[in-house]
Amino acid sequence: MSPIRLGVVGYGKIAQDQHVPALRDNPAFELAAVATLGAPCPGVAHFGSLRELLANGPDIQALAFCTPPQGRYAQVREALQAGKHVLVEKPPCASLGEAMALVELAAEKGVTCLFAWHSRFAAGVEAARAWLVGKQLQAVTVQWKEDVRKWHPGQQWIWQAGGLGVFDPGINALSIISHVLPEPLFVTHASLRFPGNRQAPIAADLTMSDATGLTVSAAFDWDHGHDELWQIEVRCAEGCLRLTHGGAHLLIDDVPQTLATTGEYPLLYHYFAQLIEAGRSDTDLQPLRLVADGFLLGQRETVADFLD
Amino acid sequence: MSPIRLGVVGYGKIAQDQHVPALRDNPAFELAAVATLGAPCPGVAHFGSLRELLANGPDIQALAFCTPPQGRYAQVREALQAGKHVLVEKPPCASLGEAMALVELAAEKGVTCLFAWHSRFAAGVEAARAWLVGKQLQAVTVQWKEDVRKWHPGQQWIWQAGGLGVFDPGINALSIISHVLPEPLFVTHASLRFPGNRQAPIAADLTMSDATGLTVSAAFDWDHGHDELWQIEVRCAEGCLRLTHGGAHLLIDDVPQTLATTGEYPLLYHYFAQLIEAGRSDTDLQPLRLVADGFLLGQRETVADFLD
Repeated sequence: MSPIRLGVVGYGKIAQDQHVPALRDNPAFELAAVATLGAPCPGVAHFGSLRELLANGPDIQALAFCTPPQGRYAQVREALQAGKHVLVEKPPCASLGEAMALVELAAEKGVTCLFAWHSRFAAGVEAARAWLVGKQLQAVTVQWKEDVRKWHPGQQWIWQAGGLGVFDPGINALSIISHVLPEPLFVTHASLRFPGNRQAPIAADLTMSDATGLTVSAAFDWDHGHDELWQIEVRCAEGCLRLTHGGAHLLIDDVPQTLATTGEYPLLYHYFAQLIEAGRSDTDLQPLRLVADGFLLGQRETVADFLD
Repeated sequence: MSPIRLGVVGYGKIAQDQHVPALRDNPAFELAAVATLGAPCPGVAHFGSLRELLANGPDIQALAFCTPPQGRYAQVREALQAGKHVLVEKPPCASLGEAMALVELAAEKGVTCLFAWHSRFAAGVEAARAWLVGKQLQAVTVQWKEDVRKWHPGQQWIWQAGGLGVFDPGINALSIISHVLPEPLFVTHASLRFPGNRQAPIAADLTMSDATGLTVSAAFDWDHGHDELWQIEVRCAEGCLRLTHGGAHLLIDDVPQTLATTGEYPLLYHYFAQLIEAGRSDTDLQPLRLVADGFLLGQRETVADFLD
């Protein structure tokens, strides 16, 4: 099969660190063009905008969207209208409504749409999901604590309204638990801490449940300069499962499990190629819905200003 | 057909003003019991809780939930588990996730679930929907401005986290526009004004759009002590449609249209009986999804404290 010719939209940190290297290592894809307002991607046809790429660029079948979620709807829509398959970085859009409109349009156009919850491809996640099948769950605890200064130096869009704030990393944890747990989750309590000078929360606690009454407690912190951790613990009658390092490590009763070592983005693009081949989409909205519900019913608290 | 024996859960303002009178006038229903923490409903079997009603009450086939949305999920779930048809006041739950879990459970149990967007039954709404079919829409403007002190005197739950604030009335407007306009809507911009001493917004502006690029602007105000108005204007190439008085009046190019005069709640219960008869549910979540998206991407502003 000849490779899928793909264009990347947005060439910021995530595209440079993850998408482009994963694409270059995957023979199922040919990286044919990059549309970006910033510096070009070396060795790849450069365009100043998606519109220019679609009008004057090489023939492509797919587009990967690596721009911030605000403003992404109109661009992804343009790609779908042009009949392209799309991979959309998380979170897929600034709102549930926009994302649902894209799902509908992709179905109408008969193309593949993948909302890219990359953390679901962390090394331990599928093994965790498999181990949890049929287990008697007792409690789930999530701790997702990192230093925003290290991961998002100077990125202003993450602090704007719609930028999700601490849920930008936190939605990765939500994408994992909503994938490995057997029932859909819903938020029952939320508290959100907003710096006085910002529109997005720097810390949050969510309590969630499901139809069986399971309690899931999650603590998100974006101002955690020491001992960062990205950890999910599932206590079961049969033992205790822990995903650490963002899902890359899996421990059962403190015993580390042997896992494959393929990275998240290589697996993500492998999955995207499979979906295109099968003519299917994967547009799960549960992680974004959990965040939206957190904002909807969250107790707001104003905390100290955040200075970069 | 013998009447559907129904219990009411929660006997506060909305149950007293609307549900019970509508039920008493509708021969399709028999009001068999009321479960409430407060004063009993005169002439109807009284229970202190839903659990007590289900355990010791008369045989019923349906329940109408008129309690506040916070905490409603667990109660509606109990009713569905007991195989009862349910009518759930708006907004159906405190979160989208809870509401979606109820939708799933109702389907599983094979009972009727109606999320009761009562404003969709205002006298002008169906006529507006019919008139708009095939029209060329240009712009939609919503103004929903009222005096919270008049409509919710001393009700503290509306100001708590998850209480929706100005979207408590505003969701009525959203339920109408999402019913009469042809395409699903999504929020593109939102601003929310929170009193310094409250967890729910007292005013909000939403800008919405749809797949065709229509612009819908909505202004919600809950501290509008004079000249209250609940108005939706749809400008079309073919003329201008206005719903006023919360949808009770309809004007086309300023000409008042003749409308039936049945009230919202009588029509709502008529519809509930039809759904039960047909074995169907109506669980549209679009109005709540629009509010959740408003909170998700809204610009927050703190305004003067609100004192009852």
